[in-house]
Amino acid sequence: MNIEEDSSYQKMINGEMYLESEDLAGLRIDVRNKLMDYNRISDSKTRNQNIKSLLKSAGDRFFVEPTIYFSYGINITIGNHFYANHDVMICDEGKITIGNDVKFGPKVGLYTPQHPLDPAIRRTEAETTAPITIGNDVWVGGGASILPGVTLGNNVIVGAGSVVTHSFPDNVIVVGNPAKILRENKPQA
Amino acid sequence: MNIEEDSSYQKMINGEMYLESEDLAGLRIDVRNKLMDYNRISDSKTRNQNIKSLLKSAGDRFFVEPTIYFSYGINITIGNHFYANHDVMICDEGKITIGNDVKFGPKVGLYTPQHPLDPAIRRTEAETTAPITIGNDVWVGGGASILPGVTLGNNVIVGAGSVVTHSFPDNVIVVGNPAKILRENKPQA
Amino acid sequence: MNIEEDSSYQKMINGEMYLESEDLAGLRIDVRNKLMDYNRISDSKTRNQNIKSLLKSAGDRFFVEPTIYFSYGINITIGNHFYANHDVMICDEGKITIGNDVKFGPKVGLYTPQHPLDPAIRRTEAETTAPITIGNDVWVGGGASILPGVTLGNNVIVGAGSVVTHSFPDNVIVVGNPAKILRENKPQA
Repeated sequence: MNIEEDSSYQKMINGEMYLESEDLAGLRIDVRNKLMDYNRISDSKTRNQNIKSLLKSAGDRFFVEPTIYFSYGINITIGNHFYANHDVMICDEGKITIGNDVKFGPKVGLYTPQHPLDPAIRRTEAETTAPITIGNDVWVGGGASILPGVTLGNNVIVGAGSVVTHSFPDNVIVVGNPAKILRENKPQA
Repeated sequence: MNIEEDSSYQKMINGEMYLESEDLAGLRIDVRNKLMDYNRISDSKTRNQNIKSLLKSAGDRFFVEPTIYFSYGINITIGNHFYANHDVMICDEGKITIGNDVKFGPKVGLYTPQHPLDPAIRRTEAETTAPITIGNDVWVGGGASILPGVTLGNNVIVGAGSVVTHSFPDNVIVVGNPAKILRENKPQA
Repeated sequence: MNIEEDSSYQKMINGEMYLESEDLAGLRIDVRNKLMDYNRISDSKTRNQNIKSLLKSAGDRFFVEPTIYFSYGINITIGNHFYANHDVMICDEGKITIGNDVKFGPKVGLYTPQHPLDPAIRRTEAETTAPITIGNDVWVGGGASILPGVTLGNNVIVGAGSVVTHSFPDNVIVVGNPAKILRENKPQA
């Protein structure tokens, strides 16, 4: 079965309230097991090729330090020249789109799932998602968190430990919790 | 020996200044070694059963993603239907009590130990603890930290990356560092 | 070859813009592979001796919980009686100097690398570093981040989840993002 034809998957990726189907749950188990194995591979070339094979797509010069985790992988699209330092977590229930020349520091978290605010609904495991889109030349500092629905433009720098709760345009440095613009940072050339 | 009869354990759990006894140190070594093993088990059912066996108690529908760490386990009580995403850390030198239907995002940290403020005393390894109590239907967002002595009521939502330094009542959404109430969130029904 | 004679290494450690040389890259691969192995050793004495052997120097009573990562190790100098809880990350592209009787909580990050602000330069992997210096009797709370160029005096306490963007003198408690002085904390004796 093509998981993209699963109605639960379609709701998940489109931001509608969904419950994980059996097929989605099976994919998640498979990805978890593979990541547990792949994260233990010392040879970086082999480790990165294996991890990359779980993503929807990723360009050349893809390098992730161990240990990286994501939920499904198939919702993650990454451009060329990506680097993620140790212990990055990408919750890709929603779509994750990452441009070229992007660097993640250690312990960065990208979170697309949103549990319902009403506890009675939250208990059912129903949830929604909102996509995260990251432009080219973005550098996310260590320990920063990117929240559901955030779009970062090109050449955005996110300070270490920041919590990014809303979107930012091109060419800014953002810091803090919640992250705010520290200053503009236009390319020099 | 029943560790709960150890005088060092009793001081620890009661919030008095204590030094780790030989028995406590032995328990910690045993738990660390077991967690290192259990966290590597691919089969989630087996992994979760093994990890659950180290806790004082946990209800049904207990699921933790790898890798989870805690200090002793025996000070952690969890209700039914608990989910912890990857890389959660629970420092259970003090008592940790978690209600039903609680969800932890990735990289959440619960910290009960308090090192003494005076450096001469801190150097001796003496420390105190303060318990953490979490109600039913609580959702703690990714990367959030819960500090010693915090009680969260029922249906509290903690925003990703928040640092929770004091207690909050039922039905609130809290965010920031230090976490403050963003708004009320009464159940809809 | 002595890596300290490598011109790339010398630029890196001196805060000049540098590109990783082949020798530096080789060292990093070797350290990554060794840390992946060492972090899996259950016996704490063996694990700690092995990890310590990768550092420039560390004194007696050195204990790190699994999993710890650093980039090269050879730029890290630690005094006596060091404790790091689980999941600490030390990016030691720049020099890291840590005094005696220092405690790191879980998920602490020390970050010395600074990627260039101009995206065209950042894409080349060129970067600079700034050293981190930590005095005696410092306690860094869980999940805190220490940024490039920061010096912390003796007996500084960093609250959990803090982001330390600039230096602080002796005997203060700092909290928040960015971290600010909460209050003085002179030794009692």
